[in-house]
Amino acid sequence: MATELLHEAPPEKQRSLGVVRTQFAELFTDDRPLQLACGARLGPITVAYETYGVLNSEASNAIFVCHALTGDAHAAGFQDELDRKPGWWDGFIGPGKGLDTSKYFVICANVLGGCQGTTGPGSLNPATGKRFCLDFPFLTVRDIVAVHSELVTFLGVKQLLAVVGGSLGGMQVLEWSIRHPDQLKAAVVLASAPKLAAQGIAFNAVGRRAIYADTGFANGDYYGKEGPKYGLALARMVAHITYLSEDSIELKFGRRLQDSDQFAFNMQKETEFQIESYLHYQGKRFVQRFDANSYLYLTRAMDYFDLADGQPSLSDALKAAKARFLVASYDTDWLFPTSQSRDLVTSLLKVGRHVSFVELLCPYGHDSFLIDLEPLAQLVGPFLERSMNDVSSPSA
Amino acid sequence: MATELLHEAPPEKQRSLGVVRTQFAELFTDDRPLQLACGARLGPITVAYETYGVLNSEASNAIFVCHALTGDAHAAGFQDELDRKPGWWDGFIGPGKGLDTSKYFVICANVLGGCQGTTGPGSLNPATGKRFCLDFPFLTVRDIVAVHSELVTFLGVKQLLAVVGGSLGGMQVLEWSIRHPDQLKAAVVLASAPKLAAQGIAFNAVGRRAIYADTGFANGDYYGKEGPKYGLALARMVAHITYLSEDSIELKFGRRLQDSDQFAFNMQKETEFQIESYLHYQGKRFVQRFDANSYLYLTRAMDYFDLADGQPSLSDALKAAKARFLVASYDTDWLFPTSQSRDLVTSLLKVGRHVSFVELLCPYGHDSFLIDLEPLAQLVGPFLERSMNDVSSPSA
Repeated sequence: MATELLHEAPPEKQRSLGVVRTQFAELFTDDRPLQLACGARLGPITVAYETYGVLNSEASNAIFVCHALTGDAHAAGFQDELDRKPGWWDGFIGPGKGLDTSKYFVICANVLGGCQGTTGPGSLNPATGKRFCLDFPFLTVRDIVAVHSELVTFLGVKQLLAVVGGSLGGMQVLEWSIRHPDQLKAAVVLASAPKLAAQGIAFNAVGRRAIYADTGFANGDYYGKEGPKYGLALARMVAHITYLSEDSIELKFGRRLQDSDQFAFNMQKETEFQIESYLHYQGKRFVQRFDANSYLYLTRAMDYFDLADGQPSLSDALKAAKARFLVASYDTDWLFPTSQSRDLVTSLLKVGRHVSFVELLCPYGHDSFLIDLEPLAQLVGPFLERSMNDVSSPSA
Repeated sequence: MATELLHEAPPEKQRSLGVVRTQFAELFTDDRPLQLACGARLGPITVAYETYGVLNSEASNAIFVCHALTGDAHAAGFQDELDRKPGWWDGFIGPGKGLDTSKYFVICANVLGGCQGTTGPGSLNPATGKRFCLDFPFLTVRDIVAVHSELVTFLGVKQLLAVVGGSLGGMQVLEWSIRHPDQLKAAVVLASAPKLAAQGIAFNAVGRRAIYADTGFANGDYYGKEGPKYGLALARMVAHITYLSEDSIELKFGRRLQDSDQFAFNMQKETEFQIESYLHYQGKRFVQRFDANSYLYLTRAMDYFDLADGQPSLSDALKAAKARFLVASYDTDWLFPTSQSRDLVTSLLKVGRHVSFVELLCPYGHDSFLIDLEPLAQLVGPFLERSMNDVSSPSA
């Protein structure tokens, strides 16, 4: 018996999707480019995406997952047999999980302007044969969603069962619900907001300043060189603080020292406290996986996001939406506090949309939607099932 | 009548102290140096200080004001006849104000390690004839208070009526109350805490990283050169966000654009939103008045501060204190939240100390103690009067 147990997959792999390959689609063309909100045109656009589960014959079980600021298409499973680190939402996507791949066909794609396979500032500009760098066109959440929407059509799905996302992902869900209202039956918006508040813009501004001020930035033309590695790491450090709650950071690190139980009394020692060492580590690791230009473009897309833009009110903007909504916030999230979700929900209710709303209690701050997956699964699972069985036409 | 009115001083100057000169004391000597907490010795130490009001014949009406991280000795009045910007707490110090200079003799001194006249890393090292830079000894809140304490003795004051301070200033008040308990009758601790929480250390770590990473830093040896001006500005930008409440930043700036009512759609435009322009301005202004090395030393002193250090509990540490305490926090202060003041108050009560505590309602976040001065005056005024009239010996 003991031997048999040893031969089983480790528990965390049992419910995993195993090895998943990232795929690539080429959307739009030079002749039929994407018309961006800024007025520029872009095409062709390569999109990196992954799918999990099987699309049913009616193509009615597809769910699109929108990733947050620094996520990518690799949301679940492993990249090869030796890979030990699964995708960023592996705990939520898989057989029997929150997005149950034994029932649903789940799609996740790297965003436009990203650096994990989808066309972005680090891609080659077909017009010049060189990388775009800061010549990459300015992009918005609307443009990101336009590319996702095109990918869904490319995959043969006329209407998604649901679009799901947290943080910047949740902004994409909202944008999708009003720009392409017939393309989704349900919208799941987690730890997000209908616009970025001034404090969020402020923190993004600090991160960008760190990148711009790094001498390695070279006005964005740093590929093949060291690049703004200090600035990008710094941007991640400050952002990372905003993703954690005050209580979780206190509980996890408190005032504990890194190497000793005695103060060093040394101005040259930069990482004396565990929290410092942790943030420095997060910064360094981020530089290995992310591109500074993408960080600039995507934080700006967040800054610009205001669902009510051009409309008299948020409610007016939401009149275009047809989906059923599930909105969840977290009590310890101070970057996207519950008050912002409540504004969204009130505005949805004002125009008679179907919306379920809950503030989840979780100590982990903004990152809770990436960590505390069991309570989320208990909410999202039944909501999706109800949406799947809902044969009535979308509201409005 | 109109002419007479025109000849009166402008209203904001009427209750002002007029021109106040910064004075300098030389404390400690090479032979009798200050023994620092880190083990190093330092002497002589120049201290920049100002006084407001008149010391009475019993020397019983002296109040010491401890400034916060980037403050200085110039707390009130004007530096010359043409000066239009009064000291940093001018609204609180003066005739008829919170610290009423018609009754009290108020002292404020630049902290050890500072850059506004008191010995710090930018001062000349007598041993080498060159500036200290990072050879300046590591300092703590205890050392800052030791210098203040010596200055009070130098000024002929045996016992202060009160020590008053907010933020890092409040930490000094607390340290003073247990290290030199007979030197103060009352302690006023505003928007502060008995130790710096992990989140506070985290934000300080980001600020220091920005300075260290700036190529102009040159390991602290940058005097006479440009110095780490981008890093220091960045440090100020991130710190400044933590001084404001989410609501006040939203109310003051919201999502308003700086130069236009239309988005620029331009990655080269760094200060598109008003909040960005404001933060950049704050950063640049700070570089003109503050020294990066002082910023490193003083944020580290904050990080190290834990009143309970070396004691079984905070209450045990506070057993040494004899003063009457007034503790005030602000409901919108998320850097030094009310919970931290409450811990302090509970610990004071456990050991039978006299303490008054209030959470003030004010929208301005951590900076409230520098802005919303009328409610503060209404609290502090009667508290000081009561302390002045209290002829009983200090408690314990």
